Amino acid sequence: MVTYLPNVRYLCGFSGSAGVLLAAQRPVFITDGRYAEQAAAQVVGARVAIAKGSALAAAAAASTKLGLKRVAVESEHLTVAQLDAFEQALGKGVKVIRLAGAVEKLRALKDADEIELVRAAVELSSRLFRPLLKTLRPGVAELAIAARLEYMARKAGAERMSFETIVASGERSALPHGVASSAKLPSVGFVVLDYGVVLAGYCSDMTRTVHLAKAPSESRGLYAALLEAQLAAISAIRPGATTGEVDRAARLELKRARLDRFFTHSTGHGVGLDIHELPKLAAGDETVLQPGMVITIEPGIYLPGRCGIRIEDMLLVTESGYELLTPVSKGFIELN
Amino acid sequence: MVTYLPNVRYLCGFSGSAGVLLAAQRPVFITDGRYAEQAAAQVVGARVAIAKGSALAAAAAASTKLGLKRVAVESEHLTVAQLDAFEQALGKGVKVIRLAGAVEKLRALKDADEIELVRAAVELSSRLFRPLLKTLRPGVAELAIAARLEYMARKAGAERMSFETIVASGERSALPHGVASSAKLPSVGFVVLDYGVVLAGYCSDMTRTVHLAKAPSESRGLYAALLEAQLAAISAIRPGATTGEVDRAARLELKRARLDRFFTHSTGHGVGLDIHELPKLAAGDETVLQPGMVITIEPGIYLPGRCGIRIEDMLLVTESGYELLTPVSKGFIELN
Repeated sequence: MVTYLPNVRYLCGFSGSAGVLLAAQRPVFITDGRYAEQAAAQVVGARVAIAKGSALAAAAAASTKLGLKRVAVESEHLTVAQLDAFEQALGKGVKVIRLAGAVEKLRALKDADEIELVRAAVELSSRLFRPLLKTLRPGVAELAIAARLEYMARKAGAERMSFETIVASGERSALPHGVASSAKLPSVGFVVLDYGVVLAGYCSDMTRTVHLAKAPSESRGLYAALLEAQLAAISAIRPGATTGEVDRAARLELKRARLDRFFTHSTGHGVGLDIHELPKLAAGDETVLQPGMVITIEPGIYLPGRCGIRIEDMLLVTESGYELLTPVSKGFIELN
Repeated sequence: MVTYLPNVRYLCGFSGSAGVLLAAQRPVFITDGRYAEQAAAQVVGARVAIAKGSALAAAAAASTKLGLKRVAVESEHLTVAQLDAFEQALGKGVKVIRLAGAVEKLRALKDADEIELVRAAVELSSRLFRPLLKTLRPGVAELAIAARLEYMARKAGAERMSFETIVASGERSALPHGVASSAKLPSVGFVVLDYGVVLAGYCSDMTRTVHLAKAPSESRGLYAALLEAQLAAISAIRPGATTGEVDRAARLELKRARLDRFFTHSTGHGVGLDIHELPKLAAGDETVLQPGMVITIEPGIYLPGRCGIRIEDMLLVTESGYELLTPVSKGFIELN
């Protein structure tokens, strides 16, 4: 029984905000009257049923009627209250299995159609980068820059941003997750720009760090070291490599520059219908990369109270290695 | 153990995206290293603890250490996987109680500070209404109008929109939940505008329906009938009245105009840190209204394939009756 909506969408195409997919031998998608038209138009590979009351209760009734012996639920998404209600509504003799990550594992491998959708989302956000740079001026609030970007994204057709836009300038660039604030851009210093859009359900994610005014050589050095680390991680991508190896490649490069202790998060993550999905590219994670995975590579260094830099691309794992999806230069940018 | 973040924020002030409040006799708020500074600055009424691993596991350890006999969890928010992990990490002899809606019930009654925050959010979104009307022109895509509104909201200081902006024009106005699409505004017809902002965590929510070009008298009649229903529901608000009575007042008025079967959703809902919270103003709900409740009144009529109209205000239940919070006219608007 699939209740997590991105999983429902992945399996049967329904993009509305309420519905349950009973992925039995003869699959049934259950929703309510509000979504009758939408379900009829979108759902593929499952019969559509309209529930009068709760879709969960209807799924329990359908499970009983189908004579199922066991129903697996998505334990990472179903709430305790939903499980209790579902179990109460189930016929005797139907057993509930708690399953985690089953559909997520399938989703880590994108098919050709999905890759095209990801590509379109990446291209849209990449096209916004140059216009975005034009909005960066000392004294402008980070929030105003995010607002302008989001407006351009919506005008260009984005359904929404894929996460809260990060515009972190000056000392705030040292915050790994510095969402745009009322802080004003300084006259000199780094600005981390991390954003993405959703297009036809699929997400994009990119980060560039630019410098306001001429940068001191130390800042240039930090940027160059981080870029080397990002490129090293990218070079490690190939089918058969593990996520941990890719993560290690970035860290090793930063260690050479004695900057590894400032890289405080993981190297990347899968992207698709969710902004963060499998695989996770982190220390100790040993998932084997496979063709069709779409991932970010986004090492960052954060010097508390001083500055931070992050560079992030999206990449597709291919039969022969990888394809860089994000077509935006990573050369050092000084804005005057 | 409070895990739902709006409830955590309500109880101890923390507005970050990861943390657990153990609301024991000596309350502990547990988060991870990323939020150490923010928690120290925001949390009131609880000791702050920084977990090395998962905050849930740390909450289990703290529960055991405090010698608690029972820990209630928020069953409507905790996932099955989280419950399983929590129970596994708990010491023997500590019992888990499944509790639903406890904090939500408290949150339905706003104190003076919260009412001021709601007021500020309502005022911000209300100020945007006139500039929003200026963007409505035949041939402009609904999405472009939403984008413009959201840009203005962000520039005016909104953290974000409180839900996906609805711009539903022409036949699409008959969709009760017609989020802005690529459809272009027609030269004649209704446009439903339903939006809200988040300011300091608190949400606003308002709907107005305007008419492009001169309206036929039938459309004017529908609008007048719906407005009467909205006013009737508002007039029914007083401490001691039930939510069901208020809902009934709107339906009775529409029944008089033989339009009640086109009113297919509930009359309103509470608004606060969440866009939908208690109380629910729906048929059969018999919650007693109390001073301090902040609610919407938003009847709508939807004539499939033809048009729809919805009018929504936010109101505060007071000792003597109610206060209308939304200062935007409900007179019939024809845009030329």
